[in-house]
Amino acid sequence: MSTAERAGAQDPRAQGRGGDEARLTVADLGEEGLLARFAPLLPHAAGEVVGTGDDCAVLAAPDGRYAVSTDMLVEGRHFRLDWSTPEQVGRRAAAQNLADAAAMGARPTALTVGLAMPGTTPVAWVEGMVAGLGEACAECGAGVVGGDLVGGRAIVISVTVLGDLQGRAPVTRSGARPGDAIVHVGAPGRSAAGLALLSAGIGVGEAPGLAGRGPALAGLPRAVDAGTRAEARACLEAFRAPRPPLEAGPALARSGASAMMDVSDSLLRDGDRIARASGVILDFDEPATGEGALADAVASLMPVARLLADDEAAAWAMARAWALTGGEDHGMLATVPAEALGAPAGADRLPDGARVIGRVREAGDGESPGARVGGRAPGAGLGWDHFGG
Amino acid sequence: MSTAERAGAQDPRAQGRGGDEARLTVADLGEEGLLARFAPLLPHAAGEVVGTGDDCAVLAAPDGRYAVSTDMLVEGRHFRLDWSTPEQVGRRAAAQNLADAAAMGARPTALTVGLAMPGTTPVAWVEGMVAGLGEACAECGAGVVGGDLVGGRAIVISVTVLGDLQGRAPVTRSGARPGDAIVHVGAPGRSAAGLALLSAGIGVGEAPGLAGRGPALAGLPRAVDAGTRAEARACLEAFRAPRPPLEAGPALARSGASAMMDVSDSLLRDGDRIARASGVILDFDEPATGEGALADAVASLMPVARLLADDEAAAWAMARAWALTGGEDHGMLATVPAEALGAPAGADRLPDGARVIGRVREAGDGESPGARVGGRAPGAGLGWDHFGG
Repeated sequence: MSTAERAGAQDPRAQGRGGDEARLTVADLGEEGLLARFAPLLPHAAGEVVGTGDDCAVLAAPDGRYAVSTDMLVEGRHFRLDWSTPEQVGRRAAAQNLADAAAMGARPTALTVGLAMPGTTPVAWVEGMVAGLGEACAECGAGVVGGDLVGGRAIVISVTVLGDLQGRAPVTRSGARPGDAIVHVGAPGRSAAGLALLSAGIGVGEAPGLAGRGPALAGLPRAVDAGTRAEARACLEAFRAPRPPLEAGPALARSGASAMMDVSDSLLRDGDRIARASGVILDFDEPATGEGALADAVASLMPVARLLADDEAAAWAMARAWALTGGEDHGMLATVPAEALGAPAGADRLPDGARVIGRVREAGDGESPGARVGGRAPGAGLGWDHFGG
Repeated sequence: MSTAERAGAQDPRAQGRGGDEARLTVADLGEEGLLARFAPLLPHAAGEVVGTGDDCAVLAAPDGRYAVSTDMLVEGRHFRLDWSTPEQVGRRAAAQNLADAAAMGARPTALTVGLAMPGTTPVAWVEGMVAGLGEACAECGAGVVGGDLVGGRAIVISVTVLGDLQGRAPVTRSGARPGDAIVHVGAPGRSAAGLALLSAGIGVGEAPGLAGRGPALAGLPRAVDAGTRAEARACLEAFRAPRPPLEAGPALARSGASAMMDVSDSLLRDGDRIARASGVILDFDEPATGEGALADAVASLMPVARLLADDEAAAWAMARAWALTGGEDHGMLATVPAEALGAPAGADRLPDGARVIGRVREAGDGESPGARVGGRAPGAGLGWDHFGG
């Protein structure tokens, strides 16, 4: 909070809580008024030596190291004000950063948050966003230890996550070894399916907070069965407010994971990154075989795909593409030595929800390291080597 | 670098370095192409356990703690593309964050950088900005350990700084005690004067890189003497690309500073924050007495103020306001116990350039803690309790 130009002019008339609260804008309240409202919504970090409100926060690093990563979200690109409630946007901003720390095998300890926004932004929107962000942090024991509020043409949220490796070696993307199993924790493709639903007008314009709870689902015919509605809701929620399996990151590290990423861009794209950084082939199971966790994931997406596709074959292709090439699920994608799979119950066991979805093998003569599906190189049609997931 | 939607589409045709380099845009090159260009421009952090390119970087925290702060800069608010070269914008983005770490008494160790920008942004602009940012980091031994590139309507730069307290207690804003001296390292008011010059059209539209070197100064009459030109250049440079006295932060901490901030908003505004957090009065010397470092600062700004003011009295009032209420100088403002002033040469001595600019005293009965100038409360006319400096 240390630049001279701010989100809006401070107007003493707006400092009172009376008047038309719903129409109160960021410019009405000013930076100090906003900060006074946000402070109660933000959890403290466990290892907080100096909290928010000074030039810097100071955090403990018990093992003498810390993990750090920064991600930005831009209105109209990463979220839409008519597609998500402010709470969902805040939860998403937190989740994708918390997942980055977990994917190094770290426990997320704190976030800092930079927020650029027009002076016309309703205070209620910002308050909701901050509340959602704070909730996501509180659930995993992380704090919010500082940030910046500035004026801007569109809403831009920049989040930095700090993490504690708890004495373990960081799990990078370059350690995958031939013979390792590819393991995933999460529900691949749900976020992409949620985006597809919203793009088709399903779930758009729901009342704030309704998603996942109310009986209706805007844009959906009444005849759609309850199971399909439930899966559609889960997909919308995964896109709007992902809940990454944050515990699984450190747990996979304890199990001896050789490489790990959270799935930001897609199973195939991020798997390809691990493969290339490690100099190996990551061969994902082909869902078409009907066996294994990826086949299960595709099957669970089929009811939603049928809402959008003209026929069964098109629905299947759509569901398969969501699972393999859809982004922003923020599940944990790891490679683990084969011996970890059969580990007995205890500290080194794979975490609950971990499913094997492929195998790591050596790259053959003249073969480039990279991702495969059922032994075959993914075609350009899968879209996984282009931006935009 | 972990979101699905990016600054632009990757176009293989633009990957070659041939063609019209000057017209190459961010959308032409794509995120991976941009990253490949930036990597050589970015210094590594000294305590880098895992560098950029993974889900997180991992940094060493030798004393088991680290300082962290986030600041955002928005195009059109914190910088203008026609007022500053890209190198200057990058240097400024780095400087204001590095100063936040120094003002805790920490050595800045690393930055992460989030960058939102339109796809039409010239690659040359981004490259220049990153180079300026990297230079400012390299000069103080800090690294750049990660970040994010996303599309956006305007350029938004979000920087997070990490710092190492080197075993010392953090210097917060709440430790000022009656009897302490107010000490400052820097040239207060130069940045505000630079902004005033640019607002009056002086220095606008100079060729990139010219500021501070070339013989001309756009918009200035030829008759202006060399001394005035030199001071005007120093002011423009202070606004465009501040060089905070980063060494002075840890040095003041070693001298026993009881409270410290970098001057982001103004001497009076930030001094008022220290005073209120500490429950004391910070009484700054009145420049009108003609004696002391603040009087010297005002005197050195007078030649520049005369370029903009109608008469000598108006020039003096302008120079005084720049020094006391101008923001974004990022000098180090500290309170130090009186005994530190007379310390002999050695580890505990005040750093070079430290000047006494006032005294800390107890708040009297019924008196609110806050800043004073020459014993008097600054009026609203000083502007220091409003946004915008």
